[in-house]
Amino acid sequence: MTIQIIGFAKSTCTLKVIATLKELGIPYEITPPATFADIKTPEYLATKHPFGKIPVLIDDGFQLYESRAITRYLVNKYQGTKNSTVLIPSDVQKAALVEQFISVEISYYNGPVTKLVAQEVFTKFRGGSPDPEIVKEAREEINKVLDVYEKLLEGKDYLTGEFSLADLHHYPYTYYSITSGHGDLWNDSKRPNVARWWKNISERESWKEVVAELK
Amino acid sequence: MTIQIIGFAKSTCTLKVIATLKELGIPYEITPPATFADIKTPEYLATKHPFGKIPVLIDDGFQLYESRAITRYLVNKYQGTKNSTVLIPSDVQKAALVEQFISVEISYYNGPVTKLVAQEVFTKFRGGSPDPEIVKEAREEINKVLDVYEKLLEGKDYLTGEFSLADLHHYPYTYYSITSGHGDLWNDSKRPNVARWWKNISERESWKEVVAELK
Repeated sequence: MTIQIIGFAKSTCTLKVIATLKELGIPYEITPPATFADIKTPEYLATKHPFGKIPVLIDDGFQLYESRAITRYLVNKYQGTKNSTVLIPSDVQKAALVEQFISVEISYYNGPVTKLVAQEVFTKFRGGSPDPEIVKEAREEINKVLDVYEKLLEGKDYLTGEFSLADLHHYPYTYYSITSGHGDLWNDSKRPNVARWWKNISERESWKEVVAELK
Repeated sequence: MTIQIIGFAKSTCTLKVIATLKELGIPYEITPPATFADIKTPEYLATKHPFGKIPVLIDDGFQLYESRAITRYLVNKYQGTKNSTVLIPSDVQKAALVEQFISVEISYYNGPVTKLVAQEVFTKFRGGSPDPEIVKEAREEINKVLDVYEKLLEGKDYLTGEFSLADLHHYPYTYYSITSGHGDLWNDSKRPNVARWWKNISERESWKEVVAELK
């Protein structure tokens, strides 16, 4: 039975799951809720996601919410079944380093890029105008975070050395930050390691497919 | 070689790691940095944690930062070696539900309780006074989150049904929220499931030991 993802194909958290499915070579179908308001109805809260979010995975009757739990589940269940891509290595120390950088993304990277994308993409989508003060603040915060990433990525092509689920979790918000006009932050001559990293991950076949389908 | 934890024994994120070590029955030693300022020095940033945080784990030469990565590593490496406690089950679906609730803690629970504890504990610790407006706001946010937890915990003793790493990650901020005078939120007759859940987890032997050592 084909894996079903309840979500909007352009939503950042849904994109994280789609990117994982494509990396692992697993077929899926996206079932978008009828409207954005739908995910806040009592029925959705009671049966899909208690906090009214997307995406939700349904895999042969097994239901799971929270995108970062879904990506790990897909890796644990399907990694190695359709191709040889490794997103979480079996070695306990290597897997721990993937988790370390998954946590770095959540703790330090996600806040500032979410702040930027909320203004530049979500506010515009709802017909509003971005607040230039908040955009400026978000850019300053991203600059600081990327200065640390520049050191983390010294001599490495990916966060742990090899491509992993930790790199993948950075896709959606970075993509929307760049396509909304802030690509300079990820392509700054002061940060060659960050620029190389983003080039490495954004040029993967699976992500190019995700982007092609977005357009 | 004994596991070494660089951290402050009273810090919330260090407590999460200590609780995990105690649950798994693994000996450890805490090595606190000389001062709070120490974790922001260039040397600490370069060799311990690039964002200047605690805790950091050192296990026979292997070094790891970010508390939620450390707890997963400890489970993956040591679960079942010293006792029969299971914090992440081997079954893929059951493990996915643990990850789902770990993500729920990060995404919805951690923000409001951190806001409250920052005021009631950290601000006071630095000699300041809590801002009553922020405390009020945090309490309202916690109320909303716990109303959802009340539904999540219907008919269950723990978030996934059985005690897991997801419940454990809730210990430190909940403990400091309650001991700083906000226990009413977790012991409200309108939320019997939440009250039962906190009683179940806070009365575990390992957490009672952690608390005894805190005092």
